[in-house]
Amino acid sequence: MNALLLSNSASDAGYLTHARPWLAEFASTLAGSGPALFVPFAGVTRSWDDYAQQVADALLPAGIATRALHQEADPACALAEARLIVVGGGNTFQLLRELRRRGLLALIAERVRAGHAAYVGWSAGANLASPTICTTNDMPIVDPGGFDALDLLPFQINPHYTNAHPPGHRGETRDQRLAEFCALNPQRMVLALPEGDALRLDARGLALLGPHDAMLFHGGLAPRALAPGKLSLG
Amino acid sequence: MNALLLSNSASDAGYLTHARPWLAEFASTLAGSGPALFVPFAGVTRSWDDYAQQVADALLPAGIATRALHQEADPACALAEARLIVVGGGNTFQLLRELRRRGLLALIAERVRAGHAAYVGWSAGANLASPTICTTNDMPIVDPGGFDALDLLPFQINPHYTNAHPPGHRGETRDQRLAEFCALNPQRMVLALPEGDALRLDARGLALLGPHDAMLFHGGLAPRALAPGKLSLG
Repeated sequence: MNALLLSNSASDAGYLTHARPWLAEFASTLAGSGPALFVPFAGVTRSWDDYAQQVADALLPAGIATRALHQEADPACALAEARLIVVGGGNTFQLLRELRRRGLLALIAERVRAGHAAYVGWSAGANLASPTICTTNDMPIVDPGGFDALDLLPFQINPHYTNAHPPGHRGETRDQRLAEFCALNPQRMVLALPEGDALRLDARGLALLGPHDAMLFHGGLAPRALAPGKLSLG
Repeated sequence: MNALLLSNSASDAGYLTHARPWLAEFASTLAGSGPALFVPFAGVTRSWDDYAQQVADALLPAGIATRALHQEADPACALAEARLIVVGGGNTFQLLRELRRRGLLALIAERVRAGHAAYVGWSAGANLASPTICTTNDMPIVDPGGFDALDLLPFQINPHYTNAHPPGHRGETRDQRLAEFCALNPQRMVLALPEGDALRLDARGLALLGPHDAMLFHGGLAPRALAPGKLSLG
């Protein structure tokens, strides 16, 4: 299985710019395989056409040409032929709902798990690669009809990880939220990815990319920092 | 219908201390009606017994004696007799799941809507009073089996409202999250309550209590500040 999961898309450098070397390396293994298929369904407050154009412009310098899933006459057929599936961020609940109501969720999971398609996702697209969307930071603005997701990984991802907290705020911190998840799901690990980091899964194994340590949450254990490089989460 | 909905429980003054005058006024209208019934199901990382004790200690100075729903031999019977139902904060998804799986959600809604019981809720307990839990800030750590909630109000509440954002954070701001909700639910108003504020609904109508303006989000309109005092959201 080949997957690249980014915590975030935008940075001071520009849209997806920080991830360009990782994306280019990832794409080089797929050379000559036709355009990637972009899934824009996490977008809520802008049109999917605009979103797809922004992503197409951002991925081209990494050597990735894209088509947009919502513009395909036969989305299932397009997915069945795609060698690279790219799932953008936005709202995780909306993303999952749109894929489920179109009957495309299982199809994506099968293609990627079988190694027939590679997977790139950021933010909501990284949540979607997890067993469930239970560790998203997003607001549950629509009911996705169940929280089960692509289940490409044996652990959960929490993107945009930070434990910073606005002064005077009385809501839960991120660490408290993740501790709640772990209390109800003690067997399930959560890998929290700070802004700028990514996770790469390929024949070489699992690697943490980027400048920051990630944080591993598991059951009642104290969160553990993991340095960039090869990861073993056993 | 009588309801008191607090944005938050803890403050620098102590647990529920800032709300004591509102709680005492609220309780005075129910004098002689027996103990209130506390619903601890939003608690995740501490025991419901401990949670119930903390709330009992905090409500007694406001003249409110409590029993805990999870300690009742017949919860439905206890709810059917309670004149005041108190729903504490924690995780909204867990709260809704526990009420739904016990078949108690509709019973609470009926009692409060009919005016047979008054309702006090904070944080997750305020989300629960909304039509749906779609404007909670909580992490979706469990699937509640549907997002429909008590539907005591004709609008959504967003508790712990702030648009402050940790520097460098690339996730959505609160305003962006609420704009996403409004984009998908253009008919549904959201009243965002800053820390320290509360909403009181009784025979006098709807009032915003506390030191801060609340923010009203509706469709594509710019968020509108509402000053404390009598509210009309028409």
